[in-house]
Amino acid sequence: MRVSQFFISTLKEAPSEAELPSHQLMMRAGYIKKLASGLYTWMPLGLRVLRKVENVVREEMDRSGGVELLMPAVQPAELWQETGRWEVFGPQMLKIRDRHDHQFCFGPTHEEVITDIARREIRSYRQLPINFYQIQTKFRDEVRPRFGVMRAREFVMKDAYSFHADFASLEQTYRVMYDTYTRIFTRLGLQFRAVAADTGAIGGSGSHEFHVLADSGEDALAFCPDSDYAANVELAEAVAPSTPRAPATQEMQKVITPGQKTIEEVAAFFDTSAQSVLKAIAVITHEGEFVLLLLRGDHQLNEIKASKVLGEFRFASDDDIHRNMNCRSGYIGPVNAKIRVLADRAAAAMSDFICGANEDGFHYSGVNFGRDVHLDEANVHDLRNVVEGDASPDGKGSLELCRGIEVGHIFQLRTKYSESLQATYLDENGKTQVMEMGCYGIGVSRIVAAAIEQNFDERGITLPAGMAPFQVAIAPIGIKKSEAVRNAAEQLYAELTKAGIEVLLDDRDERPGVMFADLELIGIPHRIVIGDRGLKEGNVEYQGRRDPAAQAVPLQDVAKLVQSKL
Amino acid sequence: MRVSQFFISTLKEAPSEAELPSHQLMMRAGYIKKLASGLYTWMPLGLRVLRKVENVVREEMDRSGGVELLMPAVQPAELWQETGRWEVFGPQMLKIRDRHDHQFCFGPTHEEVITDIARREIRSYRQLPINFYQIQTKFRDEVRPRFGVMRAREFVMKDAYSFHADFASLEQTYRVMYDTYTRIFTRLGLQFRAVAADTGAIGGSGSHEFHVLADSGEDALAFCPDSDYAANVELAEAVAPSTPRAPATQEMQKVITPGQKTIEEVAAFFDTSAQSVLKAIAVITHEGEFVLLLLRGDHQLNEIKASKVLGEFRFASDDDIHRNMNCRSGYIGPVNAKIRVLADRAAAAMSDFICGANEDGFHYSGVNFGRDVHLDEANVHDLRNVVEGDASPDGKGSLELCRGIEVGHIFQLRTKYSESLQATYLDENGKTQVMEMGCYGIGVSRIVAAAIEQNFDERGITLPAGMAPFQVAIAPIGIKKSEAVRNAAEQLYAELTKAGIEVLLDDRDERPGVMFADLELIGIPHRIVIGDRGLKEGNVEYQGRRDPAAQAVPLQDVAKLVQSKL
Repeated sequence: MRVSQFFISTLKEAPSEAELPSHQLMMRAGYIKKLASGLYTWMPLGLRVLRKVENVVREEMDRSGGVELLMPAVQPAELWQETGRWEVFGPQMLKIRDRHDHQFCFGPTHEEVITDIARREIRSYRQLPINFYQIQTKFRDEVRPRFGVMRAREFVMKDAYSFHADFASLEQTYRVMYDTYTRIFTRLGLQFRAVAADTGAIGGSGSHEFHVLADSGEDALAFCPDSDYAANVELAEAVAPSTPRAPATQEMQKVITPGQKTIEEVAAFFDTSAQSVLKAIAVITHEGEFVLLLLRGDHQLNEIKASKVLGEFRFASDDDIHRNMNCRSGYIGPVNAKIRVLADRAAAAMSDFICGANEDGFHYSGVNFGRDVHLDEANVHDLRNVVEGDASPDGKGSLELCRGIEVGHIFQLRTKYSESLQATYLDENGKTQVMEMGCYGIGVSRIVAAAIEQNFDERGITLPAGMAPFQVAIAPIGIKKSEAVRNAAEQLYAELTKAGIEVLLDDRDERPGVMFADLELIGIPHRIVIGDRGLKEGNVEYQGRRDPAAQAVPLQDVAKLVQSKL
Repeated sequence: MRVSQFFISTLKEAPSEAELPSHQLMMRAGYIKKLASGLYTWMPLGLRVLRKVENVVREEMDRSGGVELLMPAVQPAELWQETGRWEVFGPQMLKIRDRHDHQFCFGPTHEEVITDIARREIRSYRQLPINFYQIQTKFRDEVRPRFGVMRAREFVMKDAYSFHADFASLEQTYRVMYDTYTRIFTRLGLQFRAVAADTGAIGGSGSHEFHVLADSGEDALAFCPDSDYAANVELAEAVAPSTPRAPATQEMQKVITPGQKTIEEVAAFFDTSAQSVLKAIAVITHEGEFVLLLLRGDHQLNEIKASKVLGEFRFASDDDIHRNMNCRSGYIGPVNAKIRVLADRAAAAMSDFICGANEDGFHYSGVNFGRDVHLDEANVHDLRNVVEGDASPDGKGSLELCRGIEVGHIFQLRTKYSESLQATYLDENGKTQVMEMGCYGIGVSRIVAAAIEQNFDERGITLPAGMAPFQVAIAPIGIKKSEAVRNAAEQLYAELTKAGIEVLLDDRDERPGVMFADLELIGIPHRIVIGDRGLKEGNVEYQGRRDPAAQAVPLQDVAKLVQSKL
């Protein structure tokens, strides 16, 4: 492609709203252009990258037996009402009324539509298993779209849905998809990690997320460097301390602590660490019960874990706390509290600790479970986020933390949708059975942003050749003035193009500085500079996007050199 | 592809709502599946065909210098309000409110969005011309979606928009796009015709439609077999009769014609033909003026032509007619009418004609312009549809009519959008200029249906190999029972696949009748049947989809035979 026949439009400065490197660089490089909040045009350069990701996803899905189709983006409300999700999905779903006042949505996902197809098309076990997929534009009306295409409202997704005669078949396809995702992200050259995404309701292997590792990631991940264990911090188990609770050595004392309300203030006041202070969090359950949750002072509540024990809950307001405990929130604690108390495993292992005295301006020190606070074993749960150094749940070492960007999610749906939509088939014995189902998503457009979070430097984007918009750039200096330069550039362009390489010939006749800055910003992995000076000695300059400096290469060898690097 | 790993689901009967052959066959062959009115899933077989069309369109657009991008489907109302089309577009536009109550639409077209991009990205004449295109899902909320994907609400469109420094540049790109469209439809093996779509407001070459010729087409086209002339009947000029009006030979007479109201009734009553009866049509203009339009009895009013003369108008009701003419609609005419009268050119050339007497139950015969009815030359216009045999407007013969399905439309927009959105650039002299603009659409999903209208027989779809879902089918008889059949089928499958041919191996072990019916219905152009009987003599059976019978071919030659046919 010649730049003169293409469209390159770079910016010196990213708009101020762009916080992440990927967002800033995609805007500056002219990969994307904002139309409205969460709505982006994929400009010619960006679209080339998006299509490369799309093609890798498609090739690997095809290779693993996926069958591509294309469902409508606009979906009728009736199907969502059948599964009960029309209301459940909430305002993230973009609802639409057509000219006849019928209700539709811009599909945020396609479980309902594909299950409707399956129930009408699949009659016999002989048609199973089948794994349908599509690559399609979806819409989720995010409260706060941000980070460019990372969390856009309109986005491109690969969604696959598999149907099975039994759970064993679902498990098999699930494993195949796990391996397929691993292949996809490996081919794309991404550093990624598959993590368990749910160890609760569905079972140990029920769901995995695939995260591209990046400091800017919205998700915290826990993993064990000495084993396979990896999970989203939302779900990573904080195991019970390996040593039993130490026996009491102090007497309980009531201490005047005026103005000392936070864990840090109290720890400093008592000249100790947060680990010796008990954190009490008051919540109200869906049924209206006031409950105290106890954590070690240096630990954070994991709301997902708490809601698995309590069901839906909310944090108590100051009023709620005053009404129930007759004191302010900084002074609440479990001593003599006539309410339900749940303790995290680490909190339950504390002894001689400090906690609020349920009286404004007072704490207790030297508190011990058993002697001063009754704590039933049944009220001890995993309620906190794991922290760096926690024991790995598989017993094979200790956990480390990192941050990730979720780019894939695979899920054993079992019969959640096939039951509500009555997607059944006849088995070998002519008996009607409900299909088992899996679903497998990849955020195709998000991958582009996530990949750039892993591939950039101070000069711009450094995507690998498999994802970059072009593989090679030819930058002729003075193409309009020098016939030698022009001829060499055209010849090389023809030669590389003929070899099936995606070459960008910068024929704009810009100054070298402008050309180089553009080519580095937009992220072309290999650059060949052709100038009169070098040509006199039969040389051009080659530089890889990540190389510290250019090297002189004989003109007749440079095509071979570049090909060897691709 | 093996059928066992693919998804084929055919129907014996098409749903009764499917009227057109293409709609019936696409449903029966399992190319598409209806989700709701005007919303279709492209099933695996159909999607393969859609993608082939898409690829041809993309390749030819790229070849002619188009630059692909991808704009959002969802568009903010503000842009449409800037051009005034938010209201004008009407209920065909699917309007949406997001969670913040901001207004959007599901883009029915993208002039506003691309012009917004152009005004922000293009600053200099050096960036012009540029021709952006995208292949994307669009939505038009049709009053009556019908004919399957032919007139669906959600559909796939290729839309291109070019920007230019001057009209000459626009004209040049317009010609390139005309040629590109011709190449696309030719490559797809379609019988098509490019017709002038507007000879009015914009100028002779301002707009062309590309129609796939089919009896079921919604558009009537006029063309001259002896020249290049072709136009949509909506716009084809009906030239004035070559012979002048004959002199009067009869006296005007008032005749009692009770109950004779239609042209046919009146002609029969006077024992003459419709050509001798004047048709008078009463309309009301936007300003409320009552106007009579005169046509020869055998001609039809062309409303688009009439509105070019009158502006917006509606047909007068019985009440309107009674109030203005004091008689019923069957008896109105121009004699002594104290209202504005416009005559079609052919009507103006009539003499000794019959018309209503503006009195219930009476007509005049022997009426003549000039003597009995004043007719100003300024009130004579082209108001009718052309009919077979009319003189071609280019003077090179006479017109024939055919029907077509519009699959492409190219248009010189000039500055319609660039002016209202202020898309300007700096010219060589640093002066601000408004860009010239063209737009070029192709109904990608509609092409699939239109192609099937031209390629089917009583057994199913007969698409050419360039569009068919697979190029070759291998149909082994008794694949599970006979090792010889299985081996031959697998070997041939491997050989053809290796040669880059898209082969479908029917490994379902179905009865031959079922296999053949499916393969014919879904439209595989080349079929190789492998059975024990033939193999004994080293033969298989080859049959082209349009061949009357199969021929025995030595197994070792069949791959070469098929390749020679592709």
